[in-house]
This record gives sequence, C-alpha cells and structure tokens, in this order.
Amino acid sequence: MKVIKGDKVIYKFTHEMEYRDKVKPNERFIVETNDCFFQQVQDEDMPMSKLDYDCLNPATGPIYVEGAEPGDILKVKIIDIEVEDKGVTMTFPNEGVLGDQATQTKVRILPIEDGHAIFHGIKIPISPMVGVIGVAPTKEDGEWPTATPWKHGGNMDTTDIKAGSTLYFPVHQEGALLALGDCHAIMGDGEICFTGLEIPGKVTLEVDLIKNKTIKWPLVETEDYIMVNASGDTVDDAIYEASSEAVNFLKNGLNFEWEDAYMLASLTMDLRISQVVDPKMTVRACIPKNVLSTEDLLKGIK
Amino acid sequence: MKVIKGDKVIYKFTHEMEYRDKVKPNERFIVETNDCFFQQVQDEDMPMSKLDYDCLNPATGPIYVEGAEPGDILKVKIIDIEVEDKGVTMTFPNEGVLGDQATQTKVRILPIEDGHAIFHGIKIPISPMVGVIGVAPTKEDGEWPTATPWKHGGNMDTTDIKAGSTLYFPVHQEGALLALGDCHAIMGDGEICFTGLEIPGKVTLEVDLIKNKTIKWPLVETEDYIMVNASGDTVDDAIYEASSEAVNFLKNGLNFEWEDAYMLASLTMDLRISQVVDPKMTVRACIPKNVLSTEDLLKGIK
Repeated sequence: MKVIKGDKVIYKFTHEMEYRDKVKPNERFIVETNDCFFQQVQDEDMPMSKLDYDCLNPATGPIYVEGAEPGDILKVKIIDIEVEDKGVTMTFPNEGVLGDQATQTKVRILPIEDGHAIFHGIKIPISPMVGVIGVAPTKEDGEWPTATPWKHGGNMDTTDIKAGSTLYFPVHQEGALLALGDCHAIMGDGEICFTGLEIPGKVTLEVDLIKNKTIKWPLVETEDYIMVNASGDTVDDAIYEASSEAVNFLKNGLNFEWEDAYMLASLTMDLRISQVVDPKMTVRACIPKNVLSTEDLLKGIK
Repeated sequence: MKVIKGDKVIYKFTHEMEYRDKVKPNERFIVETNDCFFQQVQDEDMPMSKLDYDCLNPATGPIYVEGAEPGDILKVKIIDIEVEDKGVTMTFPNEGVLGDQATQTKVRILPIEDGHAIFHGIKIPISPMVGVIGVAPTKEDGEWPTATPWKHGGNMDTTDIKAGSTLYFPVHQEGALLALGDCHAIMGDGEICFTGLEIPGKVTLEVDLIKNKTIKWPLVETEDYIMVNASGDTVDDAIYEASSEAVNFLKNGLNFEWEDAYMLASLTMDLRISQVVDPKMTVRACIPKNVLSTEDLLKGIK
C-alpha cells in the first residue's frame, strides 16, 4: 500500500498548490499525519516561547486524485486511524470558549493504554478523528490557513470524521489536491479549551469521484446520518448555513415543497456543534439516512 | 395517583405565583399538558388570524412541592410521557433559523401509528419530550413568559427532557412552584422551523429535594450524562454559560485545578444544541457520568 510521508506538509490550502503524491480512485493508501504542534511539545514544562509558531497545523499533502476535475465531488472514505501511544493537550491564556478565565499555559501529556487516555487517573476511551482535512478552495475563495475551516474543509474538528465515515468535498482544481493532519485521540464536541488530545497518526483512506455534481459545504456520512459541515464567524452563522443547505437537500432529494422540507428538518434533523474555538466555528446538520438516503440526496443535486 | 388537570395553566413564570396543587417529595403524580397552541389548531387549513395568541405555551401548574425552600434543589424525575395519536407542526413567515426564506404559513397534522409519526409517507419514530418545564424564578430575575428559557427552566426545548431523565432546578420560592407543558412527540436538536411535533400529553413525575444546595442553571441527568442547560441571546452566549458552569462542576467535583478541568471538559464534554428559535437560545454541556458522577458533582457544590 502506498504510504504518503508526514514530511510533505502544507500550512495553507490555496487554489494553486503543487501536489506531492498521486493516487487513483479506489486505491487504498496511508497518510502519515503530524500532530497540530508538529510534535514540538514533548515535555509538560516546555516554555511556549520555544514553540515555532510557523509550524502549527501541518497537513500532509497535497495529494492529486487522478481524474478529479472542477465540478466533481471527491469522496474520501476513512478506513482506519492509527494513533501513537501518547497525546498532548494544553490551555493557553485567553484561548478557547472560556478564554477570559484562562490565565495560564498548562501542558498535559497523556499516555494511551489499552484504548484509553489516562488523565489524573481517569480512563477516557479514545475515539480517533481527523481534525484538518480538505481540498483546494476556489480561486475566488483565496487562501485558507490550515487552522481555519471553510467550504473546502480544513480545520473542521468534527468528531464524526473517524474510521468508517465517508467525506464528500467539492472539487475546484485538477486532482482535487487533498491534504490532512491534526488527528485527535479524543475530543468533546466543541473542543472548548482549544485543543483535543493532539497526536500523530496513520490514516488509511480510499478515494472515489462523483462526476459532474457539486456541493457547497463538505458532507460527512456516518452509518446513520449525512451531515452538512458548515462554518461561520459565529455558531449562529454556521447554524444558518448548515440548516439552509440541509433543507435544500431534503427538498430536492424528496421532491418536497420547501416548507415541508423545513418542517421535516425541524422534526428529525439534529444540529450538532463541531468546534467553537477555531478562527471560524463549525456546526453539522445531521440528516437521518432513514429520512433521506445518500442516493436520493445525490440524485437531488442538479 | 394524583392527576393535575390541564385546565390549570400559567403563561408566565413569576416569583410570586399562586399554586394550584400540592405534592409531596417521593409522591408519584400525573400532569396533563396542553400542546403549545392549547389545541387550537385542529385543521391544516385553519387561518392563523383565528388563533388566540394569548393562549400560546400554556404550562400546567404551578405545583407546590412540600418542604421545598429557597436555597434547595428540586429534583424532578420523568417517569413516563404519554402523548395523543396526532400532533401538529407548522411554518410561519419569518420564523425559525431560516426565517428569511420562510414566506408562508403551512400546517401539517401528523397521525401517530405504532410509535411513528407519518409525514408524507415517511415513518418517523417518536421520542416524546417536555418542551416547557420550570419553577418560580428569583425576585430579581422578574417575570418570564413560558415561551422563553432561562435559569428557572421554561421553554428549554431539550430532547433529553424525556422519560427516564431527572431534572434539577434551583428553588427560589416556598414550594418551588413547578409548571410544565408543550410536549413534543418528536423534535430534532435545534427545532429549526420553530415547532416540533406539538402534542398534548400526560406526564408522570416524581419529585424530591436536595436541601441547602443551589445551582445556577437547570441540570438534566440521563443514563450517561449530566447536562448543564444554559440559555443566552445567541448560541455563542449560551455556550459560554454552559461551559463555564460545567468546568466549575468538574473542578469542584474532582478537586482539580481550573486548567485541568478546562482540558478535561475539552476532551470529554459534548456541547449540544437544544433549540435556536425561542427568544433565547439553549445549549447543554454534557458531562459524561463516567468522568464525574452525579454524587461527586453534588458534593462539589458548596
């Protein structure tokens, strides 16, 4: 199996990026990912003045997917996420939801044993996820630092981006130009203190293409849901975007009047918080697949 | 078993309310609840000009709980919620998350058969919940229309307020003065169009007291979580309040430094959206009980 090494990284998603590797649709391959600090934090007492802030949020890639053209959808199936045996979490002054109460830097390095991270004796079952994953944005959308989520993906920090899930991205450039990094061994929805359990990983993927269909925001498909992953300057903005797109999928996928789709969403669709601490906030609108199948959702896209 | 009839209702929670019924700690009783329209909408073609807007969101009660005094916590265990065999949902112009796209009133009355609501042939499994439930607010907090959620409870529209859950409210008045109504047969987290499947119900409850302990926001306990249910003018405001209180519970319940509690919350606590359409927005911060037990949480409250 092809292994794409973790030394090939980007720090921003741009429309024009030079690809580092090439894969084919339906090929299975492994991407080595760095933690969001590029493994610089190995010691709980490391002074933050020693941190090279130019090396934060590296994403491995870009990876050119053969046959991907602007106007297609790139499907990315996450087969497996293998993480190392320790992860790092920390607080920074003024950072996170409670930034006004956070006055000090504190670093905790947690060992992982038998699938559990250990925090002051509390055993937390891990659930590895990919924090940053995306493709080349549109030319109009400009450059996006890897720390920020937007329509091309990026730092969506969504706990459902895990083994077994399938992601859908709008392709805006030849080859799509996929890149990913920033795995978390565990994270709560919201990621309130600004970090999850940051950890290097090996992510096994398979990609595929849906030709001549496009979407506005990335989708995440799990066993039971198809989720619109939208971001905005506030959580309220992200909620509007995710809801608007999801109601359109219900309307077009089920041939409903808009008002019926709006009511059906209100009755069956959960809005879930992904993260509220990156430069933009991310929310996912979770459409149950027993209300709208993936097939019908895709059929409804013109 | 005592049955408290649905004709005894309030439309606002105030510090001074005359109670209509009395119950004892550990007594099991039934509360009949009206739907949020007081059953005025029985016909999909009913013109909204006929709706009496003074009779919206009735809450049955207030119910005086013997022995409850200011400075206590009222525990309310929801034993069962029985709902009728049809519910109503609707859109209004300019209402809900997508109010700017909502131009018409449309009413749907859905039959419920074998535990499923039927919407244009789609069978939606019901999961009955209580939309409005609360107690007398503090004198300083003033009056709260039943449509609005706040520290006393009210229209929290939280899907986890269902059979099997236990709620905790701060007591601000002799007898606590509990009132409830506005059941939904089914609702998605967010309630984006402004209504769930609105339905009359019979709610079986048991109440109990925790003496001389107080909380700022209502708590909802399920099998796996203890949730801080906070509300604010924006979802972002509600997130701050819910997170701040939850981190304090972790800090005091586990004897952690604040920064460690903040990190532990970031790793294990989900922020979930309750509703984003009432005059204030509601978010719940879900602390896993295998991280902090209910017993330790309560012990940590001074």
